[in-house]
Amino acid sequence: MNFDRELQDRVNEIETIIKAYLPEESGWAKTVMEAMNYSVNVGGKRLRPMLMAETYRLFGGADKAIEPFMAAIEMIHSYSLVHDDLPAMDNDEYRRGKKTTWVVYGDAMAILAGDGLLNYAFETALKSFEMSGSDAGRKAKALSILAKKAGVHGMIGGQTADIEAENLGHQVTIEHLLFIHEHKTAALIQAAMMAGAVMAGAGEEQISLVEKAAYEIGIAFQIQDDILDVTSSLETLGKPVGSDAKNQKTTYVTLKGIEEAAREQREMSDHAVKLLRSLEEEGFQNEFLMELIQSLITRIK
Amino acid sequence: MNFDRELQDRVNEIETIIKAYLPEESGWAKTVMEAMNYSVNVGGKRLRPMLMAETYRLFGGADKAIEPFMAAIEMIHSYSLVHDDLPAMDNDEYRRGKKTTWVVYGDAMAILAGDGLLNYAFETALKSFEMSGSDAGRKAKALSILAKKAGVHGMIGGQTADIEAENLGHQVTIEHLLFIHEHKTAALIQAAMMAGAVMAGAGEEQISLVEKAAYEIGIAFQIQDDILDVTSSLETLGKPVGSDAKNQKTTYVTLKGIEEAAREQREMSDHAVKLLRSLEEEGFQNEFLMELIQSLITRIK
Repeated sequence: MNFDRELQDRVNEIETIIKAYLPEESGWAKTVMEAMNYSVNVGGKRLRPMLMAETYRLFGGADKAIEPFMAAIEMIHSYSLVHDDLPAMDNDEYRRGKKTTWVVYGDAMAILAGDGLLNYAFETALKSFEMSGSDAGRKAKALSILAKKAGVHGMIGGQTADIEAENLGHQVTIEHLLFIHEHKTAALIQAAMMAGAVMAGAGEEQISLVEKAAYEIGIAFQIQDDILDVTSSLETLGKPVGSDAKNQKTTYVTLKGIEEAAREQREMSDHAVKLLRSLEEEGFQNEFLMELIQSLITRIK
Repeated sequence: MNFDRELQDRVNEIETIIKAYLPEESGWAKTVMEAMNYSVNVGGKRLRPMLMAETYRLFGGADKAIEPFMAAIEMIHSYSLVHDDLPAMDNDEYRRGKKTTWVVYGDAMAILAGDGLLNYAFETALKSFEMSGSDAGRKAKALSILAKKAGVHGMIGGQTADIEAENLGHQVTIEHLLFIHEHKTAALIQAAMMAGAVMAGAGEEQISLVEKAAYEIGIAFQIQDDILDVTSSLETLGKPVGSDAKNQKTTYVTLKGIEEAAREQREMSDHAVKLLRSLEEEGFQNEFLMELIQSLITRIK
């Protein structure tokens, strides 16, 4: 089967899993559930649950205990977008060609929907404890990794540094920018892959290797975002291009130039694949995961 | 020792526990950590961790494994206030006589601080898995209860229904109002007491009894809030009084009158104590908890 076909099949499987875990829209609090489901169903590449499932598969994981974690990480990713888009934050009206949650449901309900998704992510992941497959220790560890990488020492920390960088304008250094990318983007990629590894029973050294590879995948993925903001079009990307320049935002591209950024991005991506391929000696192999990682830096949206 | 003295001692113990679990303020994301810590340190009665600790004690719990959960539930309570106070929500500038988080740190940082506290609550509670005392099954169950009662089927659901009630004005029915109070206020009181019971190894019937008692304690507590909004003063309460009337907000007091509201409140509080006292037959007794519950409906702030 070719990669694109296989990718689409796996996206479809993930969509089914996510939908199964979203809340039913009913009762006096129906509106927040509608806003939550709207936010998740707006779409996306489902990259984080996919990386989680493929890393789980890499280490021999084969049962459904990973599924609540897959839904959970997509809920966390979605909530972060809902709150980022708020007028008090980035004030974005469109994402993936659709109106953002606050535009449709209002600011107050968008704040609650984001809170609801973050909280529901933990409710959902905790359902894995009631399922067979894996053990309670692994589940608690996977949950701890997810929580830490999503929090103030992870994604929320990156978002904080990003907001502070906006106030600094062009004084932002490469160290500051790498902190932002590491935390805002790479941390959740790390959480996805590390949780997959932990749930499949990977050892400490393997988890540490996965953390390093996921860091490089996350940074390479973010650089591709910065490149696309310069080179893509509104139609392809589903959101305005050139917004970084308009907002005088410092990016990897503004700091290093587009060619050097692309070169470093390829280097990181190749190195991540090399790291993961080193696990083949121990009998752990997943060709689809290797292709997926390489596809991230050639994606056009 | 008299009740007030004992209460103050226990508040002090809880303050020490909460402070020990708050994040250290450092690094590029320092500001969000400052805003989180400001939000929690603004004070409060620490009622939820206290009810949790006392219910844990009621069922014979004696070790520190409950402490991360105590800190976690106060973080959840604090985050809900930070987001409630935002201009896009209730637009409140003062709480407990101090400036609210968004007034000090701005809207964007207050949104992130709320997200940070909610996420950190789970990170913190998950630390209990690394501690001795209780077992992993109990910890996972306590965490699931906490997550559910804080989420869209609990506190966030209540907040949603509250916002929708504001749009309805005086058409709000007693059923709608009870839904709001049950979810916005009682759910987290239930989470506190149920998590305490679960962590101490209480059985299903005991947990169910605690859930019922906590419902009544939560509603009685909320009615006292509504009564104080009519009868108290700014100096005593630390926030403007008469705000419900000003906002044309439907409360238990506007629907039933102050005397009937006070009567029902006492009935619920007495019944909660009676329910919990029925556990004495099984050898479970905590006099301080009984006094604490009764004190809630005579409190003046």
